[in-house]
Amino acid sequence: MSLADFRNEYDKFDLPEHLLSADPKELFSQWVDEAIRLHAPEPTAMSLSTVAPDGQPSSRVVLLKGVEEQGILFYTNYDSQKGQDLAHNPKACLLFFWPTLQRQIRVQGTVQKTSTAVSADYFHSRPLASRISALASPQSQPTTRAALEEHCDQIEAQYGEHPPHPENWGGYYLTPTHIEFWQGRTNRLHDRFLYTRHESQWQIQRLAP
Amino acid sequence: MSLADFRNEYDKFDLPEHLLSADPKELFSQWVDEAIRLHAPEPTAMSLSTVAPDGQPSSRVVLLKGVEEQGILFYTNYDSQKGQDLAHNPKACLLFFWPTLQRQIRVQGTVQKTSTAVSADYFHSRPLASRISALASPQSQPTTRAALEEHCDQIEAQYGEHPPHPENWGGYYLTPTHIEFWQGRTNRLHDRFLYTRHESQWQIQRLAP
Repeated sequence: MSLADFRNEYDKFDLPEHLLSADPKELFSQWVDEAIRLHAPEPTAMSLSTVAPDGQPSSRVVLLKGVEEQGILFYTNYDSQKGQDLAHNPKACLLFFWPTLQRQIRVQGTVQKTSTAVSADYFHSRPLASRISALASPQSQPTTRAALEEHCDQIEAQYGEHPPHPENWGGYYLTPTHIEFWQGRTNRLHDRFLYTRHESQWQIQRLAP
Repeated sequence: MSLADFRNEYDKFDLPEHLLSADPKELFSQWVDEAIRLHAPEPTAMSLSTVAPDGQPSSRVVLLKGVEEQGILFYTNYDSQKGQDLAHNPKACLLFFWPTLQRQIRVQGTVQKTSTAVSADYFHSRPLASRISALASPQSQPTTRAALEEHCDQIEAQYGEHPPHPENWGGYYLTPTHIEFWQGRTNRLHDRFLYTRHESQWQIQRLAP
């Protein structure tokens, strides 16, 4: 079978108008909950897209860590490529794709950093090995495996079970301006609904698939 | 369990230096083949990120349709939002994420349209219902379900089993400048290798996770 011939029929669910919540946060949380309950692989994984100063977009997977009043929450190293991109241009896109549910959610908006207290609280909730490697790894910089492992050993020797929260590691809230829900349907006639924020109101439109 | 506590250990594979091909296309094709062979859900799905004139990135899933001399191939409606973004800024990113294999591939580069002949050949290889809905759907424009279905019926009545290839529907080749392979590892010490093209040569660097 050639690559060109890979396609699935999307026939599991539909998204009729009457299931749309007035506030997209409700439907968003419902779809995340269903992805978890229906055992989608990595249900909280989302693709984060940012833009470099030369206009080059880039994407990578990050994990959803909360849906809060301030926005959709994720954490990273602020000195990473995404952190540098966001310092220059805070516009970002988050894309969820749950292939086993035949669903996507696309979120566009602007990010702001979480407070140091919020970042530190979450940092200290992570497994010890993750905290150590977050300190040891100069994210997105060239390195070697030996240098990384040696740096982890040094940090473990220095701090034991209490590595400090590094200043360059923390969260972002993405405040949505647009949220689109995509439900795969048969014959590629997918259901797509775009929520657009106008001041504090959300307008809903069906988009052609 | 709270969203903040969702995390997996990535312990299935590693990516040692000696498995890196000199040409990233080889490793790319190998990972796509393995995703297919190991039954990853939607193995050819990739997130395509583009940038609007106001600097807003956006992402959506498209399907990989070939890995060719000219680049990585996908098809779409040229009048869709992604088509409009790419007409203004041809820089794009493709992201593959295979959670069951704990792998990502990130590709950055510039797109160019395929020839009309290539687009038409592929268009005519698609299932009839997909061809009809491609003609019927003004992609990314506001619509109603009834209007879409009515338009499909009209096109079917007009063309039967031979709908013509629409001029606004076709392919793009993305020619990579950067390709990164990410293999999840334990304790978040993931293997990341970035290939950067310098004229016709590829330079390889390990990046800190």
